[in-house]
Amino acid sequence: METTSLSPALESAGLQGADIQDRFLGDWSGLTIGRPAIVYRPTSTEEVSQILKTCHRDGRPVTVQGGLTGVAGGGVPDEGDVVINLERMNKVEQIDELEGIMLVQAGATLQSVQEAAAACDWMFAVDLGARGSCQVGGNASTNAGGIRVLKYGTMRDSVLGVEVVLADGTIVSSLKGLVKNSTGLDPRNVFVGSEGTLGIITRLTLRLRPPMGTPSTAMVAADSFERLPVLLRNLRRRVGDALCAFEFMSADYVDMACKLTDTPRPLAGKPVWYVLIEAAGMPGESMDERLQDALGAALDEGEITDCVQASNLSHAMKLWRIRESIPEVLTHIKRAITMDVGLPWAQTASFLESIESELKAKFPNASHLWLGHLGDNNLHLLSGPLDEHEYEQLEPFVFEALRGRAGTISAEHGVGRLKKPFLTVCRSEEEIEVMRRIKKALDPKGILNPGRILD
Amino acid sequence: METTSLSPALESAGLQGADIQDRFLGDWSGLTIGRPAIVYRPTSTEEVSQILKTCHRDGRPVTVQGGLTGVAGGGVPDEGDVVINLERMNKVEQIDELEGIMLVQAGATLQSVQEAAAACDWMFAVDLGARGSCQVGGNASTNAGGIRVLKYGTMRDSVLGVEVVLADGTIVSSLKGLVKNSTGLDPRNVFVGSEGTLGIITRLTLRLRPPMGTPSTAMVAADSFERLPVLLRNLRRRVGDALCAFEFMSADYVDMACKLTDTPRPLAGKPVWYVLIEAAGMPGESMDERLQDALGAALDEGEITDCVQASNLSHAMKLWRIRESIPEVLTHIKRAITMDVGLPWAQTASFLESIESELKAKFPNASHLWLGHLGDNNLHLLSGPLDEHEYEQLEPFVFEALRGRAGTISAEHGVGRLKKPFLTVCRSEEEIEVMRRIKKALDPKGILNPGRILD
Ligand SMILES: Cc1cc2nc3c(=O)[nH]c(=O)nc-3n(C[C@H](O)[C@H](O)[C@H](O)COP(=O)(O)OP(=O)(O)OC[C@H]3O[C@@H](n4cnc5c(N)ncnc54)[C@H](O)[C@@H]3O)c2cc1C
Ligand SMILES: Cc1cc2nc3c(=O)[nH]c(=O)nc-3n(C[C@H](O)[C@H](O)[C@H](O)COP(=O)(O)OP(=O)(O)OC[C@H]3O[C@@H](n4cnc5c(N)ncnc54)[C@H](O)[C@@H]3O)c2cc1C
Repeated sequence: METTSLSPALESAGLQGADIQDRFLGDWSGLTIGRPAIVYRPTSTEEVSQILKTCHRDGRPVTVQGGLTGVAGGGVPDEGDVVINLERMNKVEQIDELEGIMLVQAGATLQSVQEAAAACDWMFAVDLGARGSCQVGGNASTNAGGIRVLKYGTMRDSVLGVEVVLADGTIVSSLKGLVKNSTGLDPRNVFVGSEGTLGIITRLTLRLRPPMGTPSTAMVAADSFERLPVLLRNLRRRVGDALCAFEFMSADYVDMACKLTDTPRPLAGKPVWYVLIEAAGMPGESMDERLQDALGAALDEGEITDCVQASNLSHAMKLWRIRESIPEVLTHIKRAITMDVGLPWAQTASFLESIESELKAKFPNASHLWLGHLGDNNLHLLSGPLDEHEYEQLEPFVFEALRGRAGTISAEHGVGRLKKPFLTVCRSEEEIEVMRRIKKALDPKGILNPGRILD
Repeated sequence: METTSLSPALESAGLQGADIQDRFLGDWSGLTIGRPAIVYRPTSTEEVSQILKTCHRDGRPVTVQGGLTGVAGGGVPDEGDVVINLERMNKVEQIDELEGIMLVQAGATLQSVQEAAAACDWMFAVDLGARGSCQVGGNASTNAGGIRVLKYGTMRDSVLGVEVVLADGTIVSSLKGLVKNSTGLDPRNVFVGSEGTLGIITRLTLRLRPPMGTPSTAMVAADSFERLPVLLRNLRRRVGDALCAFEFMSADYVDMACKLTDTPRPLAGKPVWYVLIEAAGMPGESMDERLQDALGAALDEGEITDCVQASNLSHAMKLWRIRESIPEVLTHIKRAITMDVGLPWAQTASFLESIESELKAKFPNASHLWLGHLGDNNLHLLSGPLDEHEYEQLEPFVFEALRGRAGTISAEHGVGRLKKPFLTVCRSEEEIEVMRRIKKALDPKGILNPGRILD
């Protein structure tokens, strides 16, 4: 497709031909498809609107790009696409230090938002490994989760308002920083999580939180997965609102992570499951004793078989190092697949049990390592090494195993291009029909991120 | 309009003519318009679907009714309407006691849901005065707030999934109880808060919380409204997550409430503003000392001028009695109007200052009493007595004063019929256009709750 239908001013503002660096061609999924005709990096909402007006008039497909740390291929352009990349719209525009509200452009990195909040004694609660490159607009578009959902919720819970440009260039400003506003459909509820298929988020009003105190950290062992929901249920009562992490890991994962990162194994014996647990109160408040009592009770009740509580910050960091060794593990097992499925607690243990033996039978040369955020109904699976054939088989195999259970094929990463064929595993025909109708209502020509989530 | 186009079986299932009691004609707004042709009280989702299919085919307007405690006229039928009243769909169907998830029919009262949760050692966090009659479906449709939003959020934050019947009878089941599910547009985000204009909620998956400990309660005095945001900001840091209520009241309100309910005035002197403050931890955990320290610091910093902390439960109940005297106050001042506007903190003090003197000048014979949930950006105004002319003037007057500020005409009660003419005070043309397009996509013939929120 040619670019000549764009106005000359807009055309000259974009990167074309050899000026389009490879970094605009793909995201962390590894997928690339083709070269876009032009890459715009607008600096204002008005520019985004102008570009979209032209694309809408001409029916040109647009790919929206945030920090391109997504793992579902959502930001990957088709050959000849118009790309709108938000990286230049990266300003923190305003902070209300009294109420704790930030007005920010969508292209600001998560880390820069966290730092701007911290600089005025507030905290931005969403956090994830890609913080240095992912953008708050991208986080909102995928409704990102991360490591603090148990206490603070997902990105949705930290977004009070959005400014969005619709496919036809209409600017919808809904940036009021109100906790409650019961006056009809709130745009943020529609656009957060829509992965760029309904509109381009250009600015956000974010909710900040009072800073958190230094957490108390522990690693515990359990001899069966069935113990973990009981443990979490009871910890929420023993530790209360201070409970902020409950990250389980299979023994295979912990063993490999420790070996690869030269980290001492955290507990003796042969635990079957590990859980990293964290509790944090206000700054200056220690949760050590409360966590210790809670774990003491868990030992007494047989919920856990062993535990170690971090005696200081460097000990705590060693425990977290294990949880955060996914990159090393993936590099080591090479051709690996990572998934982020989700299930209600009541179905998780039985799912794990059946899928584990099936995976071992069907993909015998691969390791299958599990870890995840139980409080968020979120399980990550790292599988590999896989040969080419296995690589293509594994994801469909696991997704099909989810069919009929009340689970999801993606708890936090999004559907994008790669999981689109499996949407019916977790969404009914009627749910998909609602999505379709709303897509059609807001983007009748289907120019925004076509081929993502829906056909 | 006649009812003959409905199938005989459906027709005989509904109340008609003299069998339609007056209670189906209006809600707590006092508004009534006409008599519906028929009132259905379905007992299953399938029945709701059948009724809507017929209405859709025939283009018949439908009014949806929950507990009819709404105050915006949303549940008030037009002459000749088909009414679908959910009162018979009131079963708690299932509770997952481990994870804390409840599957419930939409017509269950809030109180019955609270009690069912408590019976298995969980808590349903949404609470409001109308708990005995309002329904969880109605709460979801208005995204109800209430007295615990500061800690637990609004109804939206307690809804994990919904089952909805669309205008054409399509049943959309989206009842998975997953905290995170990043697979396209989640129906709950569209239907919660839509006041019955997009679909009828028939079942919900609700999120339960671990029970809360007995709260520590205090009443404090401040000499200007500007102190209150500072106080709240600092209390959130001094008391942490345990802070669960911050309810301000003007001195006029407190004086009248105390007099009418024979409750002793809580503080000596002549405070200008009062705030009822509550902190609660886990069951068995006392927040008395923490609250006392926090209020001591507030006194030292000049954020408050006086305070009293409840020494026991009956003292605490006396303090809450003042906050909960709105019915007595309204009865006393007779022809009164209550409003629930909202503003960001940064604009609240200046809005109050200007509107107070304008109200006194324009409605000199009325009392104008303020109270509200500062943490939720929510201000309630009780004004009266008003003569007929004043009664019609007051709301538009206050709403117009909000125009140009980043506020809302309704923080929690909803737009319904009564606030529809003022929607443009707080929603831009573009926001309203998004609502219109989605309304059209889901209810193309406009049969569901016509005349509510939008034209
Ligand atoms: C090391 C690493 C760790 C990660 N950890 C987590 C984790 O813990 N939790 C989690 O949820 N995810 C995680 N992710 C995935 C990823 O970081 C998140 O999905 C992130 O939110 C994507 O943001 P981005 O700006 O990079 O978006 P992109 O990858 O650029 O885009 C993602 C999708 O959103 C759309 N989009 C981007 N910006 C906008 C916008 N302004 N308006 C409209 N649509 C837009 C794109 O079109 C695409 O469909 C991780 C990724 C990596 C590489
Ligand atoms: C004493 C008192 C105190 C109150 N306190 C508060 C408070 O603190 N906070 C607050 O937010 N509100 C409060 N309210 C207002 C009211 O109780 C709430 O708005 C409540 O959520 C309404 O529920 P309901 O079941 O009575 O709904 P209804 O009044 O029957 O209906 C309200 C709206 O929702 C629609 N609706 C109802 N059920 C459904 C359904 N199943 N599917 C689709 N649409 C539906 C109706 O068509 C209507 O538009 C109070 C009211 C009273 C009388």
